[in-house]
Amino acid sequence: FFRMKIVCSKSNLVTGVNIVSKAVSSKTSLSILECILIVASNGVIKLLANDMEMGIETRIQGEIEENGMIALDAKIFGDVVRRFPNDFIRIVTDDKLMARITCLKSKFNLPGKSGDDFTYLPKVDKEESITISQFTLKQVIQQTLFSISENDNNKLMTGELFDINGDSLRVVSLDGHRISIRNIGLRQKYDKRRVVVPGKTLGEISKILSGEVEKEVNLYFMKNNIAFQFDDTTVVSRIIEGEYFNIDQMLNENFDTKMEVNKRDLLECIERAVLLIKEGDKKPIIMQIMDNALELKINSTIGSMDEEVEIEKLGRDLLIGFNPRFLIDVLRVVEDERITMYYMGSKSPCFIRDEENKYIYVVLPVNFNPVM
Amino acid sequence: FFRMKIVCSKSNLVTGVNIVSKAVSSKTSLSILECILIVASNGVIKLLANDMEMGIETRIQGEIEENGMIALDAKIFGDVVRRFPNDFIRIVTDDKLMARITCLKSKFNLPGKSGDDFTYLPKVDKEESITISQFTLKQVIQQTLFSISENDNNKLMTGELFDINGDSLRVVSLDGHRISIRNIGLRQKYDKRRVVVPGKTLGEISKILSGEVEKEVNLYFMKNNIAFQFDDTTVVSRIIEGEYFNIDQMLNENFDTKMEVNKRDLLECIERAVLLIKEGDKKPIIMQIMDNALELKINSTIGSMDEEVEIEKLGRDLLIGFNPRFLIDVLRVVEDERITMYYMGSKSPCFIRDEENKYIYVVLPVNFNPVM
Repeated sequence: FFRMKIVCSKSNLVTGVNIVSKAVSSKTSLSILECILIVASNGVIKLLANDMEMGIETRIQGEIEENGMIALDAKIFGDVVRRFPNDFIRIVTDDKLMARITCLKSKFNLPGKSGDDFTYLPKVDKEESITISQFTLKQVIQQTLFSISENDNNKLMTGELFDINGDSLRVVSLDGHRISIRNIGLRQKYDKRRVVVPGKTLGEISKILSGEVEKEVNLYFMKNNIAFQFDDTTVVSRIIEGEYFNIDQMLNENFDTKMEVNKRDLLECIERAVLLIKEGDKKPIIMQIMDNALELKINSTIGSMDEEVEIEKLGRDLLIGFNPRFLIDVLRVVEDERITMYYMGSKSPCFIRDEENKYIYVVLPVNFNPVM
Repeated sequence: FFRMKIVCSKSNLVTGVNIVSKAVSSKTSLSILECILIVASNGVIKLLANDMEMGIETRIQGEIEENGMIALDAKIFGDVVRRFPNDFIRIVTDDKLMARITCLKSKFNLPGKSGDDFTYLPKVDKEESITISQFTLKQVIQQTLFSISENDNNKLMTGELFDINGDSLRVVSLDGHRISIRNIGLRQKYDKRRVVVPGKTLGEISKILSGEVEKEVNLYFMKNNIAFQFDDTTVVSRIIEGEYFNIDQMLNENFDTKMEVNKRDLLECIERAVLLIKEGDKKPIIMQIMDNALELKINSTIGSMDEEVEIEKLGRDLLIGFNPRFLIDVLRVVEDERITMYYMGSKSPCFIRDEENKYIYVVLPVNFNPVM
């Protein structure tokens, strides 16, 4: 059963290994979790990896001479095949679970493991699903993932809400200081569904997705899992249990002050300002919003900065402080050349959103000493 | 005296800061060593840095409104000017040694230090010098620097010998396991001279040099120092005292086995082989040199590799072991498509050299268990 013989091109194998390696556990004492399982059966060569939170399976083109399977250390196996010349790679295993991997005149022997201990991916139930483009999914993850919480105190904050309602998908992340919301139109109507997907899963998927507009990805919803199927790849991940936060009650469209600004000017100014903040320090950037001008100031032991940026303003003047990194995170992922920010005083959250609410970013202000 | 006023373009300032930053000390408690000194006087704006082993001075184009000087933290000052828009930057200092740095509507205040504690570069004595192209110096450093010793047990091994003899310059480095030698023709004859230049100095210089063939660099020799002058920059470095090793007695042109091989084939094979060596492990790569074929083998707890590479051989067959990383270092810096290796048995050093001895690399073999 274990004596596998397969041949495939270097490029196919490397592509597959790079994909499934995203689900290889890096900090574990269970060495099977550090392996890629290669399975050749029913005319198909599959690569699999599973870190018990997320599993990935991908098919690669190649020729099967004998069915079989073997688990190989992902790091070593990946390094070796990446270093091979651009030619065909042959993998042959023996009874002792030694894999002989050859390419032209180069021959490697790598000890493997049987697939018996490998935990297969949960079966994907294809009853409930939605379809979006790879481009959209990749983009929406990159535009929201920065505001998940890094610590586990509230498990729900480490994931992102995928909220399907009719023909719209809302993706939400929040960490207690800020909220990121993206609204995406779907091509058809679907049943209502709310699932919270682990941030780690989404981060890895965004790296694998080609990001092409014409290519699609199907999302399948199961009781404890979500599956993403695209190209020759299936990613299955646990979902985070629990009722996500009620976002709608945190949103409103009122404002005392509304300001329109060139995004790049504002971003570059704040990026300069953070040079004056030592790692781990919590210095706020102070915004003085006036007619036609926004003055930004920061003051630390390293030095001080003040800078003026042109704006168009509606409503009251305002003096407000922010964690500058939170503003940078938002400004880096908004595509618009000009953005609009809405304020309700110096103690209330600031909203950065477009007219159609395709994106809504909420950032809480911070207290500061106004005498500075 | 300290109230300096200067204006210069962002690009000029950034170029200058990047150059002198190579001589800014990173691990020091003397904060003046972490500074760049800006001096405006006699119609010239200079930037200086000095870590007491090496000092760099560079001139930048700009306008002086008032003479003066100030020392600014190199990291912060560099980060700030790099982040400025592409426009003119104005630096004005006050009595309290505060530097006001402005660019368009952005204004920074950075606290500085007086230049009084700054250690200036030793005066460059221009009596004895040689001239070579920036390209040649940059290249010869990159082709030899890898075989200096990293530890200080023998100070001479942490530097490179610059050995001038008539119209030839020989650059040598060695670490007890290998020797790198490059011979360079000079455009005129010079007096005999041997100096040992610290590897750190050479590494930093190779980063600053533009590497253009038409541009030149002058090397000036002083009692305790060496100076490199090029473009608008002067680098002065201490030299390492002591009598360098007698290289000539380590060289000979005899061989029992001579082998010619495609450099890239051999390099790629050895780069694959080291994938099987854990960090810090000392596994040798075994070469079996036969008529028309070189067989390379490695065997470790991770796995094993064997591979054949085509060669042209003269002389006896040979079985010999090497630290594979030493061979990789050499093969990466030799430009020739085909290289020749000379052996005198399995216990004697191997020579990799071209016909004209423009380069000579010597690598000691290692013992290995031939039963493997």
